[in-house]
Amino acid sequence: MSEFHCPENHPRYQSLRARHLIEEGIAKGITHLSGLAAHGRGEAFDYMLGEKTQAFAERAIRAAAAMMVLAERPIISANGNTSVLVREEMIELSRVANAPIEINIFNDAGNRRELIFKHFQEKSVEPYGLNPDALISGLTSARARVDSRGMFLADVVLVSLEDGDRTECLIKGGKKVIAIDLNPLSRTPQMATISIVDNVQRALPLMAEYVLEFKEQREQAEQVLREYDNAAVLKESLSAIRAGFSK
Amino acid sequence: MSEFHCPENHPRYQSLRARHLIEEGIAKGITHLSGLAAHGRGEAFDYMLGEKTQAFAERAIRAAAAMMVLAERPIISANGNTSVLVREEMIELSRVANAPIEINIFNDAGNRRELIFKHFQEKSVEPYGLNPDALISGLTSARARVDSRGMFLADVVLVSLEDGDRTECLIKGGKKVIAIDLNPLSRTPQMATISIVDNVQRALPLMAEYVLEFKEQREQAEQVLREYDNAAVLKESLSAIRAGFSK
Repeated sequence: MSEFHCPENHPRYQSLRARHLIEEGIAKGITHLSGLAAHGRGEAFDYMLGEKTQAFAERAIRAAAAMMVLAERPIISANGNTSVLVREEMIELSRVANAPIEINIFNDAGNRRELIFKHFQEKSVEPYGLNPDALISGLTSARARVDSRGMFLADVVLVSLEDGDRTECLIKGGKKVIAIDLNPLSRTPQMATISIVDNVQRALPLMAEYVLEFKEQREQAEQVLREYDNAAVLKESLSAIRAGFSK
Repeated sequence: MSEFHCPENHPRYQSLRARHLIEEGIAKGITHLSGLAAHGRGEAFDYMLGEKTQAFAERAIRAAAAMMVLAERPIISANGNTSVLVREEMIELSRVANAPIEINIFNDAGNRRELIFKHFQEKSVEPYGLNPDALISGLTSARARVDSRGMFLADVVLVSLEDGDRTECLIKGGKKVIAIDLNPLSRTPQMATISIVDNVQRALPLMAEYVLEFKEQREQAEQVLREYDNAAVLKESLSAIRAGFSK
């Protein structure tokens, strides 16, 4: 795989780097080809949002951080795209929020679980999900397969760049779901407890900052969560995208 | 490459088939990985348009057919994505409109031109562009390289699923450009003479039908073209996408 050469001050640096990381993930066998198409769809929505974290997204990120801090067993779900796009960002959030990472992928044919596991091991982190031994009911894809010590017991699950089915099943299973997805109309954000309509590369570092803040102020975290209105956030995200098409 | 198995009455048949064709194109070396990401972006816009040819798109397709019929030297530009997605549809339009096909790609490293040429040869069609011998000024990518008998002399160029630079250079070079692109805000439709905001798989067969109609009625074609308002079409396409985000 070729090196990524692009000056950091290039206006499309983040976007070009993301594309490069996904293509590299495909070459390594970590990312499925459909992940690149999904990434393209995400790019279209991010473009409409001006490629920046909008105010409604920051409110959702702040509430998500509060929910992570107050959770008993929060967990961060990693798939093929997020493993290559935001490995370091997930590890940092995992560290500050004391939330393990678990590999959860739609298709685990071949040795994809192992490849993703090794990808994290390179950074001295060993996620759950290498040998899933429990099932989330209602799902037929490999997404059903979870670790009995991890996702299975979690009360709060952070999912990013996902297909819609799983969020619904996790919610039905009594869990709270924080979703990061650039398309507010897709099923994941429509079903989630907290829907972050933002680029995962921008959202995760900001969430880690808020987690650090709330760890010292649990009462404030409780208040933020009490006052948070996800329906309003979703509505504002739709308005923002509509505005992107007003000329 | 695996076979594509999906019942034709599946609600997402066209979309799943398109994804399969692009992935197959990648496996064959015809399509660049970036083509899959671009396809994903297109899917996002098509989704917002309800995955059907809207009235404004049909007006643009009709005007485009009129322009093709009245052109002296129309040409159909083929790239990696269109070669795999709509090979048969381009060949049919080429036949009815008497417009040759020319291979024009952003990156022609390796033997991509030859692979695309052979892909058409399988259907007994030999497009221009295997050995480009002329240049379109203003472009630095391989897109500048054209055939002196084809694109170089053309008065009307049909481009689909393209990056923005080229349309601008073709227009500056005195050519008329018909663009098919699902994102009305991207540079290609913004610069084109006729902007078809529609899925290329739906637009090309419809264009071929109108071409057959106009071939017998050149005066009607002239009238359709005279009355066509591309700015209005672009404006309506933006409204349609905004409406997709109103809930």
